[in-house]
Amino acid sequence: MRILKDRILAEGRVLPGNILNVGSFLNQQADIDLYNEIGREFARRFSGERVSRILTIEASGIGIACITAQYFKVPVVFARKFRTKTIGNDLYGAEVSSYTHGVDYTVVVPRSYIKREDSVLLIDDFLANGCALEGLVSLTRAAGARLAGAGVVIEKGFQPGGRRLRERNIRVESLVVIGGMDAETGIRFLDPVQPTEARTVIR
Amino acid sequence: MRILKDRILAEGRVLPGNILNVGSFLNQQADIDLYNEIGREFARRFSGERVSRILTIEASGIGIACITAQYFKVPVVFARKFRTKTIGNDLYGAEVSSYTHGVDYTVVVPRSYIKREDSVLLIDDFLANGCALEGLVSLTRAAGARLAGAGVVIEKGFQPGGRRLRERNIRVESLVVIGGMDAETGIRFLDPVQPTEARTVIR
Repeated sequence: MRILKDRILAEGRVLPGNILNVGSFLNQQADIDLYNEIGREFARRFSGERVSRILTIEASGIGIACITAQYFKVPVVFARKFRTKTIGNDLYGAEVSSYTHGVDYTVVVPRSYIKREDSVLLIDDFLANGCALEGLVSLTRAAGARLAGAGVVIEKGFQPGGRRLRERNIRVESLVVIGGMDAETGIRFLDPVQPTEARTVIR
Repeated sequence: MRILKDRILAEGRVLPGNILNVGSFLNQQADIDLYNEIGREFARRFSGERVSRILTIEASGIGIACITAQYFKVPVVFARKFRTKTIGNDLYGAEVSSYTHGVDYTVVVPRSYIKREDSVLLIDDFLANGCALEGLVSLTRAAGARLAGAGVVIEKGFQPGGRRLRERNIRVESLVVIGGMDAETGIRFLDPVQPTEARTVIR
């Protein structure tokens, strides 16, 4: 997605610890026109899939999920992060280990918000080690719902999350995939990858 | 806003501690068509105001703010909640006391996301004691920006937040105002209030 790559190159800041700060347009500050481009692209990629609900995780996925939902005409549910492992009977919960922040937490959604007959599309801004998306997959499975796939804005292709999800035959559509990044040498993009394809550098 | 009142009466659950759970359509699960009605109504009410940026707070305000921003054609910024009072030089911060959760926290936004020449519209789902909105007012003042007003989906008129903000001559537009609620007797709405007007029960 050229418009997104250009924006990442123009405004993204590579920080120590493999962190890419795109807060000026993708999360803490949201360019709503770009969000609409992102939503349209997710709708195009998943146009052959039945989607009845979009599931994301607080906080930075919420805005993208809500704008995207307009193109699918479905409700959005966001999972909350809890620090406790004890959850009520009316909630689905899944434990998540965050490599980035070094903490474990539990993601929860009320049981009544995901139904067995739902086909759930996961949406998130980043995919790196995949912990957050794994948690959302677990919540979807716990509800007995169908998983339509996962739409990710930026995948860090040099971290294992995308590979792990695809190995479980989960359809992951990443709008851009970063092959490597470094404060000195900048950001290198990969073509969107399928598990069996060779990766092509197209920076 | 009739559509919103009907939905609150149909799906809102009054819980102990003056809590109104509207998670099934307004926050943890988002009815995007309703969000668009809400966004259009905020745009109508603030049509005479210059608005260059929408400011909200994580997490449940983000979706409403993003959908609303489409009608103003402006970016959204959300303030993050920090548990620490120590913040970096590149952030604006404001301390917030939460009566509901009984904790103090600091809300922060990067300085570069709110500019002195901005006219900021605050958006949030609830207004009760007003702590969160007071924090966003402080951030706007810290940036030296103009405050266009605050758009609130549900105001609890029996709690002091709305009065406090209006006493400071801040324009607060609440789409519905709840006069009282009780698990037994239900929810009673008030007409939208101006500081000097008598309140009329219109349940």
